[in-house]
Amino acid sequence: MQTLITLDPAKPPEAQDGLVHNRWHPAIPMVATVQPGEAFVVHCLEWTGGQISNDDNAADIRDADLTRCHYLSGPIGIKGAQPGDLLVVDILDVGPWSANPWGFTGIFARENGGGLLTDFFPEARKACWDFQGIYASSRHIPGVRLAGMVHPGLMGCLPSEALLAEWNRREAALVATAPDRVPPLAHVPCAKTALLGRMPPQQAREAAREAARTIPPREHGGNCDIKNLTRGSRVYFPVYVPEAGLSVGDLHFSQGDGEITFCGAIEMGGWIALRVDLIKDGMALYDLTQPIFQTSPVEPRYDSHLVFEGISVDEQGRQFYLDAHVAYRRACMQAISYLKRFGYSGAQAYAILGAAPVEGRISSLVDVPNACATLWLPKGIFDFDITPATQGPIVQLMESDLASCS
Amino acid sequence: MQTLITLDPAKPPEAQDGLVHNRWHPAIPMVATVQPGEAFVVHCLEWTGGQISNDDNAADIRDADLTRCHYLSGPIGIKGAQPGDLLVVDILDVGPWSANPWGFTGIFARENGGGLLTDFFPEARKACWDFQGIYASSRHIPGVRLAGMVHPGLMGCLPSEALLAEWNRREAALVATAPDRVPPLAHVPCAKTALLGRMPPQQAREAAREAARTIPPREHGGNCDIKNLTRGSRVYFPVYVPEAGLSVGDLHFSQGDGEITFCGAIEMGGWIALRVDLIKDGMALYDLTQPIFQTSPVEPRYDSHLVFEGISVDEQGRQFYLDAHVAYRRACMQAISYLKRFGYSGAQAYAILGAAPVEGRISSLVDVPNACATLWLPKGIFDFDITPATQGPIVQLMESDLASCS
Amino acid sequence: MQTLITLDPAKPPEAQDGLVHNRWHPAIPMVATVQPGEAFVVHCLEWTGGQISNDDNAADIRDADLTRCHYLSGPIGIKGAQPGDLLVVDILDVGPWSANPWGFTGIFARENGGGLLTDFFPEARKACWDFQGIYASSRHIPGVRLAGMVHPGLMGCLPSEALLAEWNRREAALVATAPDRVPPLAHVPCAKTALLGRMPPQQAREAAREAARTIPPREHGGNCDIKNLTRGSRVYFPVYVPEAGLSVGDLHFSQGDGEITFCGAIEMGGWIALRVDLIKDGMALYDLTQPIFQTSPVEPRYDSHLVFEGISVDEQGRQFYLDAHVAYRRACMQAISYLKRFGYSGAQAYAILGAAPVEGRISSLVDVPNACATLWLPKGIFDFDITPATQGPIVQLMESDLASCS
Amino acid sequence: MQTLITLDPAKPPEAQDGLVHNRWHPAIPMVATVQPGEAFVVHCLEWTGGQISNDDNAADIRDADLTRCHYLSGPIGIKGAQPGDLLVVDILDVGPWSANPWGFTGIFARENGGGLLTDFFPEARKACWDFQGIYASSRHIPGVRLAGMVHPGLMGCLPSEALLAEWNRREAALVATAPDRVPPLAHVPCAKTALLGRMPPQQAREAAREAARTIPPREHGGNCDIKNLTRGSRVYFPVYVPEAGLSVGDLHFSQGDGEITFCGAIEMGGWIALRVDLIKDGMALYDLTQPIFQTSPVEPRYDSHLVFEGISVDEQGRQFYLDAHVAYRRACMQAISYLKRFGYSGAQAYAILGAAPVEGRISSLVDVPNACATLWLPKGIFDFDITPATQGPIVQLMESDLASCS
Repeated sequence: MQTLITLDPAKPPEAQDGLVHNRWHPAIPMVATVQPGEAFVVHCLEWTGGQISNDDNAADIRDADLTRCHYLSGPIGIKGAQPGDLLVVDILDVGPWSANPWGFTGIFARENGGGLLTDFFPEARKACWDFQGIYASSRHIPGVRLAGMVHPGLMGCLPSEALLAEWNRREAALVATAPDRVPPLAHVPCAKTALLGRMPPQQAREAAREAARTIPPREHGGNCDIKNLTRGSRVYFPVYVPEAGLSVGDLHFSQGDGEITFCGAIEMGGWIALRVDLIKDGMALYDLTQPIFQTSPVEPRYDSHLVFEGISVDEQGRQFYLDAHVAYRRACMQAISYLKRFGYSGAQAYAILGAAPVEGRISSLVDVPNACATLWLPKGIFDFDITPATQGPIVQLMESDLASCS
Repeated sequence: MQTLITLDPAKPPEAQDGLVHNRWHPAIPMVATVQPGEAFVVHCLEWTGGQISNDDNAADIRDADLTRCHYLSGPIGIKGAQPGDLLVVDILDVGPWSANPWGFTGIFARENGGGLLTDFFPEARKACWDFQGIYASSRHIPGVRLAGMVHPGLMGCLPSEALLAEWNRREAALVATAPDRVPPLAHVPCAKTALLGRMPPQQAREAAREAARTIPPREHGGNCDIKNLTRGSRVYFPVYVPEAGLSVGDLHFSQGDGEITFCGAIEMGGWIALRVDLIKDGMALYDLTQPIFQTSPVEPRYDSHLVFEGISVDEQGRQFYLDAHVAYRRACMQAISYLKRFGYSGAQAYAILGAAPVEGRISSLVDVPNACATLWLPKGIFDFDITPATQGPIVQLMESDLASCS
Repeated sequence: MQTLITLDPAKPPEAQDGLVHNRWHPAIPMVATVQPGEAFVVHCLEWTGGQISNDDNAADIRDADLTRCHYLSGPIGIKGAQPGDLLVVDILDVGPWSANPWGFTGIFARENGGGLLTDFFPEARKACWDFQGIYASSRHIPGVRLAGMVHPGLMGCLPSEALLAEWNRREAALVATAPDRVPPLAHVPCAKTALLGRMPPQQAREAAREAARTIPPREHGGNCDIKNLTRGSRVYFPVYVPEAGLSVGDLHFSQGDGEITFCGAIEMGGWIALRVDLIKDGMALYDLTQPIFQTSPVEPRYDSHLVFEGISVDEQGRQFYLDAHVAYRRACMQAISYLKRFGYSGAQAYAILGAAPVEGRISSLVDVPNACATLWLPKGIFDFDITPATQGPIVQLMESDLASCS
Repeated sequence: MQTLITLDPAKPPEAQDGLVHNRWHPAIPMVATVQPGEAFVVHCLEWTGGQISNDDNAADIRDADLTRCHYLSGPIGIKGAQPGDLLVVDILDVGPWSANPWGFTGIFARENGGGLLTDFFPEARKACWDFQGIYASSRHIPGVRLAGMVHPGLMGCLPSEALLAEWNRREAALVATAPDRVPPLAHVPCAKTALLGRMPPQQAREAAREAARTIPPREHGGNCDIKNLTRGSRVYFPVYVPEAGLSVGDLHFSQGDGEITFCGAIEMGGWIALRVDLIKDGMALYDLTQPIFQTSPVEPRYDSHLVFEGISVDEQGRQFYLDAHVAYRRACMQAISYLKRFGYSGAQAYAILGAAPVEGRISSLVDVPNACATLWLPKGIFDFDITPATQGPIVQLMESDLASCS
């Protein structure tokens, strides 16, 4: 299988020969072209482009420049693809750089993006993970070893001009409702740090002012952070521009549903093997406006779960209306309280929920006024038994904690 | 195993010897008492108490009196249980009345409670399901046969007086923000139709004014509608009053995550076999304020899924902030559009999502401003292949539709 | 669903109105007839017809009269079935008598049939199991609770005269090679205890001399003891006589692959719900001479196994040639040795392997001269952790043992 | 992770610097030594050492020199290991050479070893497979794509002198019962082609006369060909010599239980990542004389199977006594007949059963005189639906067949 996009992880994103970009724009030139039916390998930088180190200090998380993220590889042209088609993408395999198999989970500080529980964990923290084949473990989180559900956090095709304009319109409107909020409600275009691949400099300066940030998932997929887009799955992406323009990045060794610490997955650089094909006019044939996917037969299988429930009443007893976000946050908080009883710090428990293959389910969403969300914690990732017992939890000796800023 | 609560499904709830109740209140008298370690069977009425018939007319769904729902069996006292304990409940088995194994899925009219997609499906509709052992199929929804993940939609312990007061406070406050909304934001106490089991009449008249409705899930569990509380699972419930007071009802033959048509599960009457035990002082030992549960080894497994993504941008292009509710609704709408391409009516597709064991996942909840939710449709429940293909969908001949009002 | 065959478990097999039989013969009259597409319930006696009691004495196992076994319900005629068709049988559900949910596992004495390990466990022993919903546990085997993979051990259609003659020919030829062996190599017809349903007495006396015993599985299925024929599975049976003549019995609450103690499953009486259909001329269409089946989506899942290997070298170091029987026996012996280290008696360990849902796999069968078979022990059925550890096994206090003869 | 043993797949086994060996002998020198707790990578040659080519001619299979097989990497010393210990081996990951991801399945000719069905398929045939990430497909077998359960076919520790002597004794005794048989009943030592790693030449000439062939699985594990020893599993091996001496080879991209075509797996060269540890005195602590293993959480998951039954009556109607080998062979033959109805040649069907992740189960082994074995065919590996249907099988156009000798 040919390596279509070759990167050098030792070099910064700007020195990768225009093969990476960090914004969405219809005019980013294709860096390579393939035929339907072709399989190939793509290198991917770690999402921050190398801002984070494998050490015991979270200052790099605290100071990470989010306006530079995410660094994506592509866009790749697919011969014959036209707007309205579905681009069929088989995720054949995905893995870390073999020379340096490590990754990290970050809890972002409130001032720098925060996370789902930023009100409770406002400071930057970091866990580094070592990969041994299919398994990851962290010196910062004792007692956990998990099988990776390796996946790209971010993948999708270039938007059309109309779609890009729509993104900018609606997101700017949201930001305008609370322009001074920290963190902001959305990330508007930011020309200064935009990298637009092989777009000619003059054109790029123009485009950077409107090119969309890569943070949110959108109609084209993008930063969906769906952990189940793992090796063996097949994704069907809407096509908006001729030749589609597929880009990919933000590889994760593992992630929990919701990716609750924001940089909650186990982030890594590495490679992904893809195969592409087309369903001509597929968007109309199947009435699709958003990607869909077929699950993989090789997802890690943790079949015994301890499940935490949450309802849409917040920590102060305020009642929300069918709010699955609040309900899931409450379920997460319950799981954190619970894990603390076994000896984990709150930050460790928070990081486990972000990084381990926990499932987040919308269990009921019509029983007014409460949504009920559930967080599914796989028991098999722990070295010890986390089942409730008559005698209460057996406290483990945790000899380390997440890295903080020193 | 003894049958602790014996009901007669042919009789109305009011004629069940005080063994059922349809409100939560700390003073409802126990109807039976068991020892920790005991196993027993409890009969349960269908949630509306018999308002719905196995026919081809949805008028009964349209006219159902929701203020009477849900009819619960209990409360059951557990010897030695004290506030602060965890009540351990094994769901040993659960099934429909053997003499009449059927159930129904209702789409409620907007005026009568609606559902997640009531803006798109505002009228009452009904599907009736026949059970054959572990399988259900419906004359109103051709091409589907599903293995039941049978479960009680509603289970929990009696609230304390303080907890009841808190429920009433916060829900009334929410209703007060939009008092004229149809459907209402929450269901406040409604004395007229309250049934308080074996509470003496005078006391019951008082209690009915404050007794909580059973519609929402709350801290004690209640109407969680978690499909995975199926036979073989073990639930840990907080205890708030002496002897706990466990009640159960709203049996479902199957349900999709979210129960999106509101009465979206396959509703049925029947029986449930339980075993109870105690973890003394368990709420503090494990720092729990909400039930948790251990999953079952006998959940039906449909391991190949087609997954639909949704983001928190509504149907008019309005941007919401990390709103998992909107995102899941959009994923549901995508799945409905998709299924319509195979010949289903919108109402049929909607009912499938409510009744089949679809999974609803919160895939990402930190990538501002979009939440990404996913709806997992099990391919194995369809008689035909729903996978996308180059030639497009093969339209099936659907010879029937959901019952409407006639 | 109608109950097609109603039995009274309190009465002996001979007093069941001709609805049961214990031999295979083409001339046994149908006791009921159904249409293709019909679903119905059939009662089944426990396989010995009530010879075994729920007590702590294995004398009944020692003295059980095997010539009377198994008692089958049927035969049931299927309208339109002809030789050469495939009879499609959906196992919709199956369960124990609700009034008395118990079962037993027997280790048969060598003189009375023995078992796979009769050389090591030559004496009669018994374990009784209590069922609580989907779970079984035994007062004779502490520390084990298992989810039932409930199934009929025996099911199949009546043989034709030619097929019956062939069975008798080949089995008699085998017995003739070692006519005095204890236990015998096969069970030849035994007229004295034959029960031939509603066959007229004169005809039955004739037929009893050639009617086949029910012990072995044969071309028609019969006593396959395949634990995976559980609720939700679909079996395709060859048809040999007009109207097929389906009979069923020998219900098991659970069983390990190989059913190694002979009466190794958890034996019980109860009921089974079936649905039948036909594939006309299916044997030729699919070139089948033996049943095949589609697996169920609701098998209990124990996904973490400790696996024991065995090779075809016997306990005295004798080398066998690709003998999967010897290899599996050795794997079983390894598992028993291992479990004894945790405090179980050999008989308890043997009974666990017969009754729990262990898997027996033929891992390699071509690497001359050794076959390699593996026994898969589900870790989740034990109350304690059976994983190997640095400090060695933690011995459990086992306060009881299997019943012996007293 | 360091690469402990580095091979050059372009060179013959003899030119690998003594890092490979093809016999078992206690005196083979360790090629490297590691500490308990260490993780490392080992390169492995394809089992024949490069005798087979990726082409459309099976002459290489016909002419393969089996006396040279298998080429193993090692032995690796583990510091502190002593006879009686258990060597804990985590299979962290395993994969093909990235530059050339292909493999082959061979049907060996009867004269050259044959296979389970050599009476029916006596001639050499070959299928070549291409790997695309986790998937394999073959130009010689249309309509199949399977997810690899990648594993080492062969792994184990060096035997002691006493154990080696015992192997030679019992295997020679078996061969002596039919010395002229083709293929032979077992493979006795063969000095001519023995490769004994870094053993000094003089010593090697002596040792070659008694060094055991690698074909059979034995007490130490060896050529078990257990497909479930895949990435994520943990194996516990008996230790017989100081420092254990772990060797590994015979990598398979996939294999069916039984590996029925003899070279039935998808054979490949590549690499394996291992981590080792010790349980001191583990053989006595757990009373183990054979390896055991813990299953992996990342096995490919094909959960819908079509299952074929076989009994121990051979193709000529001869009755065997509880012979699981014959029963499994009959189940395999049924599956082959069945698949031929969909358009496959017999050789193609045979190769599918050898190479795909089919399961082979010993379903019953006590119902005299018939064993019942089952072959589980995963439906998900086929591009078309293999379920039986009323209208019969839909014949696929198969545009190729296995390579034969040209």
